[in-house]
Amino acid sequence: MMEIIKFAIPEIIFGKGSLNHAGQCTLRLGAKKVFLVSDKGIEAAGWLERLTDILKKEGIEWVFYTEVTSNPRDYQIERGAKRYLENNADVIIAIGGGSPMDTAKGIAILANNGGRIRDYEGANRVARPLPPMVLITTTAGSGSDISQFCIITDTERSVKMSIISRTLVPNISIVDPLILQTKSETLIIQSAVDAMAHAVEAYLSVIASPFTRMHSLKAIELIHSHLKSAVQTRSLDALEQLSIASVSASIAFSNASLGAEHALAHSLGGHFDLAHGTVHPILLAAVMRHNLDACTDKMADIGRIILGGQKGSDRRTALEGIDRLVEFFSGFPVSLRLRDEVGEEGRAFLDPIARMAMKDVCCLTNPKPLTHEALLNICEEVW
Amino acid sequence: MMEIIKFAIPEIIFGKGSLNHAGQCTLRLGAKKVFLVSDKGIEAAGWLERLTDILKKEGIEWVFYTEVTSNPRDYQIERGAKRYLENNADVIIAIGGGSPMDTAKGIAILANNGGRIRDYEGANRVARPLPPMVLITTTAGSGSDISQFCIITDTERSVKMSIISRTLVPNISIVDPLILQTKSETLIIQSAVDAMAHAVEAYLSVIASPFTRMHSLKAIELIHSHLKSAVQTRSLDALEQLSIASVSASIAFSNASLGAEHALAHSLGGHFDLAHGTVHPILLAAVMRHNLDACTDKMADIGRIILGGQKGSDRRTALEGIDRLVEFFSGFPVSLRLRDEVGEEGRAFLDPIARMAMKDVCCLTNPKPLTHEALLNICEEVW
Repeated sequence: MMEIIKFAIPEIIFGKGSLNHAGQCTLRLGAKKVFLVSDKGIEAAGWLERLTDILKKEGIEWVFYTEVTSNPRDYQIERGAKRYLENNADVIIAIGGGSPMDTAKGIAILANNGGRIRDYEGANRVARPLPPMVLITTTAGSGSDISQFCIITDTERSVKMSIISRTLVPNISIVDPLILQTKSETLIIQSAVDAMAHAVEAYLSVIASPFTRMHSLKAIELIHSHLKSAVQTRSLDALEQLSIASVSASIAFSNASLGAEHALAHSLGGHFDLAHGTVHPILLAAVMRHNLDACTDKMADIGRIILGGQKGSDRRTALEGIDRLVEFFSGFPVSLRLRDEVGEEGRAFLDPIARMAMKDVCCLTNPKPLTHEALLNICEEVW
Repeated sequence: MMEIIKFAIPEIIFGKGSLNHAGQCTLRLGAKKVFLVSDKGIEAAGWLERLTDILKKEGIEWVFYTEVTSNPRDYQIERGAKRYLENNADVIIAIGGGSPMDTAKGIAILANNGGRIRDYEGANRVARPLPPMVLITTTAGSGSDISQFCIITDTERSVKMSIISRTLVPNISIVDPLILQTKSETLIIQSAVDAMAHAVEAYLSVIASPFTRMHSLKAIELIHSHLKSAVQTRSLDALEQLSIASVSASIAFSNASLGAEHALAHSLGGHFDLAHGTVHPILLAAVMRHNLDACTDKMADIGRIILGGQKGSDRRTALEGIDRLVEFFSGFPVSLRLRDEVGEEGRAFLDPIARMAMKDVCCLTNPKPLTHEALLNICEEVW
């Protein structure tokens, strides 16, 4: 018998050309002056101008904020909130990947709640409602446009903080697969493996529910089936399937949370300033093997999807599924060993990284209770 | 390649005891004085008092509106809106089945948009935002707590109007399976077959999307597996599974709409003032057979779930699935022929009923283009 399930997702506008709905959506939220968060890459690809043309048509003003880097930093959020308030903006739009969207969410928190962004680390620490948000994702992976999560780097501690709150679900998420066509192969792969990790960890989470599990399994199936062809052919059809997968994975993890893999990914990413997508092919299988005993049946569900059917016992199916997942990752130009990403000198930091990961709120929903030693062993195993 | 998909659901609080969250939820929406819509049955079962105790604890005032019947009528809505405005209420709560919830939605429309309720018949006719709504379902079927639909009887024309608008998705849906335990067997069955019809019609709808289809299939599977035991044992576990099914079916039909079966159900229900749940075991299989050629592959997906696997060709699987669905319905004390519900003298009205059904917005998403003759034939077939 289940406990109480809270399930929240934004209104989603999905499909090729859905960017064109941004103006109407923003107007509907009562916008007069939009605070528009983006980054240089999006601007260079022409999407920012496309968006401002759409806003212009609806008579909406905007002010730009493009001080966004990957792994957005606390001071960028704090400056952004100051700018938001100085400009009397009333709605926040972000267009970009996880970094601009998380920046927008962080700014929204501080604009209406004050203080420093680190005050909100953890679950349910945001008290007052946020300004309306429209998040337009340009990648198929981070899920920030759907989720209750916001990941910001605390630069003093060099750690990525997980901030989780229902109020971080934006009002409207716009997912336009046309935008993916201008993305690099690397970014498409990194986003898809992030979505795969979201789907798997949410499925195994101790607070997964019937409402999240079906979304996890759909995402795993779609990424496994379509990533290769999306990368090879850039067909809009395959990119659209990856976008569906990302939305599904995000619905799942936003409501079921994550586990040890993301706790480690945040800790590693914060310490080494790694692109988030690089760590999943390294960590995911090792974390799954670590968790296997605690959830063999669910791991076998995942195995059946990846293998296309049962292979002997549940345990065998689960293990072969994990092996096949590693095989799947190795078909792409990604690192499978940690040392290849952080360099030989990084090894000395594994102990503090495991220690920091233990504090991540994602650990709370891992299917198996975690210890510092266990997390360290996983890091050593994938070294 | 898909067109643009719009997907919206409320925040959902699900699980036994979730009713206890009603106070906090309402407070979060800024409530000072709640307009509380319910009916005599809910009051008699003690749930209304439970709810007002919860509101009292949060210091929230309320004013009652219990002028609610099954198949809620235009004048009940119009009187309710007047009461809402006179009382300066600021949030609407409904506790009950589809009737109180649809009454609440109708009142919300008129309170902020004025006019007569018939002005809003059809899709997307509601312009101004509605008062915040918390809908607490006490049945596992109508889906009004989740959906963009509101069904109100126009008493001048004796027809149930479908009003569909994104703004009719409430802010918060509370689904507490404990409440189902006080429901009659008849109501549990009628609600479940309504949810089954929602799931099937949404799955076959021409605007079904990957985001709705998985919810449809999950609902079909759960209702088929658990209705018998829910009725026989009243186990909370089985009732909870029916509630999950109802939420899933509602997410699906709210975003994919319905088809000929619901168009006929609305027309029949409006004319004869039938309980909505009585018509689905009569109509559903006949409408599925009518639509079969237009969507054999999808109908086979449904067949595989009901049959537990493929039986020969897709067409054979689909047909056997439909037969098995009829067998499933006939295991419950429900009518399978229309004459048993409306009496011999009702036959004379089938022609105008089919004509009225043709105007229902649900026809637009039926997998096969409809004609008056086709709808009449279906009515004759199930007579």
